[in-house]
Amino acid sequence: MPDSKPTKAVKAWLKKLESAITEKDVDKAVKLFGKDSYWRDLVSLTWNIKTVEGKEAIAAMLKKTLSSAKPRNFQIDGEANEAGGVTDAWFTFETATGRGKGLVRLIDGKAWTMLTTLQELKGHEEPKGEHRPMGVQHGAFKERESWSEARAREESELGYTRQPYVVIIGGGQGGIALGARLKRLNVPTIIIEKNDRPGDSWRKRYKSLCLHDPVWYDHLPYLPFPDHWPVFSPKDKIGDWLEMYTKVMELNYWTKSEATSATWDDKAKEWTVKVNRDGKQVVLKPKQLVLATGMSGVPNMPKFPGQDIFKGEQQHSSQHPGPDKYKGKKVVVVGSNNSSHDICAALWEAGADVTMVQRSSTHIVKSDTLMDIALGDLYSEKAVKNGIDHNKADLIFASLPYAVLPAIMKPQCEETKKRDKKFYDRLKKAGFDLDFGADDTGLFLKYLRRGSGYYIDVGASELVADGKIKLARGQVDHLTENAVVLTDGTELPADLVVYATGYGSMNGWAAKLISQEVADKVGKCWGLGSDTPKDPGPWEGELRNMWKPTQQEGLWFHGGNLHQSRHYSQFLSLQLKAREAGLKTPVYGLQKVHHLS
Amino acid sequence: MPDSKPTKAVKAWLKKLESAITEKDVDKAVKLFGKDSYWRDLVSLTWNIKTVEGKEAIAAMLKKTLSSAKPRNFQIDGEANEAGGVTDAWFTFETATGRGKGLVRLIDGKAWTMLTTLQELKGHEEPKGEHRPMGVQHGAFKERESWSEARAREESELGYTRQPYVVIIGGGQGGIALGARLKRLNVPTIIIEKNDRPGDSWRKRYKSLCLHDPVWYDHLPYLPFPDHWPVFSPKDKIGDWLEMYTKVMELNYWTKSEATSATWDDKAKEWTVKVNRDGKQVVLKPKQLVLATGMSGVPNMPKFPGQDIFKGEQQHSSQHPGPDKYKGKKVVVVGSNNSSHDICAALWEAGADVTMVQRSSTHIVKSDTLMDIALGDLYSEKAVKNGIDHNKADLIFASLPYAVLPAIMKPQCEETKKRDKKFYDRLKKAGFDLDFGADDTGLFLKYLRRGSGYYIDVGASELVADGKIKLARGQVDHLTENAVVLTDGTELPADLVVYATGYGSMNGWAAKLISQEVADKVGKCWGLGSDTPKDPGPWEGELRNMWKPTQQEGLWFHGGNLHQSRHYSQFLSLQLKAREAGLKTPVYGLQKVHHLS
Repeated sequence: MPDSKPTKAVKAWLKKLESAITEKDVDKAVKLFGKDSYWRDLVSLTWNIKTVEGKEAIAAMLKKTLSSAKPRNFQIDGEANEAGGVTDAWFTFETATGRGKGLVRLIDGKAWTMLTTLQELKGHEEPKGEHRPMGVQHGAFKERESWSEARAREESELGYTRQPYVVIIGGGQGGIALGARLKRLNVPTIIIEKNDRPGDSWRKRYKSLCLHDPVWYDHLPYLPFPDHWPVFSPKDKIGDWLEMYTKVMELNYWTKSEATSATWDDKAKEWTVKVNRDGKQVVLKPKQLVLATGMSGVPNMPKFPGQDIFKGEQQHSSQHPGPDKYKGKKVVVVGSNNSSHDICAALWEAGADVTMVQRSSTHIVKSDTLMDIALGDLYSEKAVKNGIDHNKADLIFASLPYAVLPAIMKPQCEETKKRDKKFYDRLKKAGFDLDFGADDTGLFLKYLRRGSGYYIDVGASELVADGKIKLARGQVDHLTENAVVLTDGTELPADLVVYATGYGSMNGWAAKLISQEVADKVGKCWGLGSDTPKDPGPWEGELRNMWKPTQQEGLWFHGGNLHQSRHYSQFLSLQLKAREAGLKTPVYGLQKVHHLS
Repeated sequence: MPDSKPTKAVKAWLKKLESAITEKDVDKAVKLFGKDSYWRDLVSLTWNIKTVEGKEAIAAMLKKTLSSAKPRNFQIDGEANEAGGVTDAWFTFETATGRGKGLVRLIDGKAWTMLTTLQELKGHEEPKGEHRPMGVQHGAFKERESWSEARAREESELGYTRQPYVVIIGGGQGGIALGARLKRLNVPTIIIEKNDRPGDSWRKRYKSLCLHDPVWYDHLPYLPFPDHWPVFSPKDKIGDWLEMYTKVMELNYWTKSEATSATWDDKAKEWTVKVNRDGKQVVLKPKQLVLATGMSGVPNMPKFPGQDIFKGEQQHSSQHPGPDKYKGKKVVVVGSNNSSHDICAALWEAGADVTMVQRSSTHIVKSDTLMDIALGDLYSEKAVKNGIDHNKADLIFASLPYAVLPAIMKPQCEETKKRDKKFYDRLKKAGFDLDFGADDTGLFLKYLRRGSGYYIDVGASELVADGKIKLARGQVDHLTENAVVLTDGTELPADLVVYATGYGSMNGWAAKLISQEVADKVGKCWGLGSDTPKDPGPWEGELRNMWKPTQQEGLWFHGGNLHQSRHYSQFLSLQLKAREAGLKTPVYGLQKVHHLS
């Protein structure tokens, strides 16, 4: 079959790119890009997670990286598509050290967006498919070591007589997904988890909790959920899945363990991590340390006058044990984001008298609407039927530079407003202070910019609209012996006060574990520099410090939702493997630190 | 694109079949079949697992089944292929109660083989893909029951205040695969397993054991192994997988439980099954009872004079604890099939002095050769790359009637002999009595006919050829205080005698659990009636009693290797679901009983 017109166009474009790059003619290469253009690279050219924006920045990146990365052999993968003036196509390529996959979008024959991602390192491919292990050693051998003996030996040696190359602090979904990838890459790794069992970080939360993201978005690497898995996983079910996954992936997962300190030896280029493992101290000496303690950092516990004289209970939302023992009690929940809504609804269901204190405006989006409008094309049964599984969806999603997201999200947000107008009107009528993000771009950008300020409605908003969850607006002034008092004098009687007041930046964990100095050296985590509330500029183009080199050698941050844990663990694992294998990994454009927290 | 010639031919054939069937014109339908023709039906027309052979038998089957099954809407699925004079194509169809999938092979425009399989029951489809459960109940409800509460309630009620519809005796791979399918079909089921943990039936075997079949053949339903899973799973690893699978599939799996008796009440149409659950008696009243205790029945423990005076240890192979405590000991292993070879090799590795007693000829095939020649086209990485996953492979494999297998297997067997000639010559030279099946058809037919008489070589044969495992040929005459004596007078000194003497028919389990009367009523299990050693005629065309209705209402047998457990559990689960749903399930051609064991 002859090539279609879009396919011809992409082939020609890739050929020109190849020849410009081979000739190291950056000017020629940059001419292939439009005025408004973006190159996003995940670890293939830059050994960084980096978006360069505009021709000048693209030129600068190419100048610095071409001679070491040696990208080449750009080949279209499948057919190109054309829609609305944009031609897009998948392509493969290789570099000096690895094989990559990319997605390019052309407008008028010039690149608008270009994604390049490292898929595997040459000579360090994951042993899968035809390269999988045999499992049995055929033949007969005296003193054969069986699989279970070898596994038991690994567990007894690693961390004691043999040092792990990587230590991951935190065994939630992030630590587990990264651990699985490092295991397949044969990088000796220990995961440190304070709970008794993998999955407990979910199990221990309030009983009605279900994932707020749908199943198609939530798969772990390598072992997708079976096709009857519920759309929204109940927390104990996802806990069981994580536990099973940890086991069958043969992760070295230390439960009942807490890292108490970590120090970097710049001469030996290694960490000393002190761990309390079920009551016994173990000292680990990894070359790389990953903080996977959740994209939320240390809990923000606000200080109000009178907290010391209040006679009831006070909890940060992360400490809330669930509603069961508060039936008939008066509860004031300070804050109006996800945790607050979930906790208020569960308390109401259990028969408590609940008041939510809204201190600032909140974005609300109905779960069904979000699934339909925001995720439907990439993460849904419909997407799967269209041949877009989660792996493909992850790359498509990654191919949209953060800078263009607002333009994509705005119409979705408008559609949401229209679709759920009655719902929003009822909430407003109940006195709820709604927003749709600083620039009306909705949930996902709020998540990326600040990781807070929203609630994905799975039922609580109806209770707010109906007045079943009582609403108070304003700032907390002080507490009395038995009430929360707002600045306008409103007195809210309380047996329990829950502070659903969010979390600090992840580098707070570095301050706790390592030192304030190192926390300040790496700076704020998460956020894009969008110059919107809680995400001060300058614009950075990528999430700060996430899954990429930081200003502290050997220190990495991993976190986010299940989608991010799955997708970005791939690129973090390849960065760690490359270092373990002794490959050269010159980092282009190491981020600067603009904010400490 | 216009249809290819083979596609046209199959479309035309299906159209003719449809019109003949719609007109209930059996003569017209049968004219579409060749003289040498086979119709294999898995539960779609016959509510049985049935192969009818030749035009006359096909006519008889259609006459009896058409008016109730009402097959219709035969549609080609994809393109037809033509190779070597045979045109084949997938098709879909429906019946009065369900939707089906089939595979037809035409020679000279007439059907040679026809496979029809039931894929789902109308109105009782598995809730998968877009029909999956939501997992969360959006909204807010007083006294909401969480997933873990609902699951705990199910576990506490089922078998006590609420009766299961199905009880499965035996929680190995067979019981687990069937349990998972029944769970998806929402049929209340309890699995009874004597061991402490799912997977223990593997874990408890000798330590070097790995699956003898490769990974592509071994997937469980719904949740395939990840693509790094070893080719031959070590026994503890498969044990862990089964345990995890049981958990995440939410099976009602009773460990430390043994069924002590079962009786059928023909009036109430239900079983009374007495179970000892971890020391406490529980009485279950299921409508259906499945024996999934393994395709091997009760161990055959041979009787020899002198067994009572022998001073060392004696074990059936199923009781052998592994080699560790026999280092430096003299061991005689009676028998020369799989178990014997595995046990002898492990004992040799551990430093025992081992003698194998070969009592009759044995088929040996090297594992690599078997993978290549016998399984490569259907179950391999190559097959996966050709678009044949295990689900597709299962149907292709099922589409070959047992009657035509010898003709297919003979050339494979010849190829094996040629390829491994040197190996076989060395074995013969060492005195090993080789065979390739009664009619030189090799391993798989021996497996189907008698489930014994072979060894898949993963190393032990080299030890036999080298004389490291000593070989003695002949029959055991008697034991002395410290030796096994053969009929030719050979005396084999022994500290341990292992009887690797195989197993009886599965209906032996029915005799133990229910009664000898019921065991005799259902008769022998397994085997085809091939009139070869240990598989007496008459020809039955299907495995006796497996996965299909038996002469005892409400009693079913399930077993076999992982491939069979996966594939046939589908058809057994649909038969059970149909009965639970109260659908009419007229069984065509219920098997007759020709042999008691």
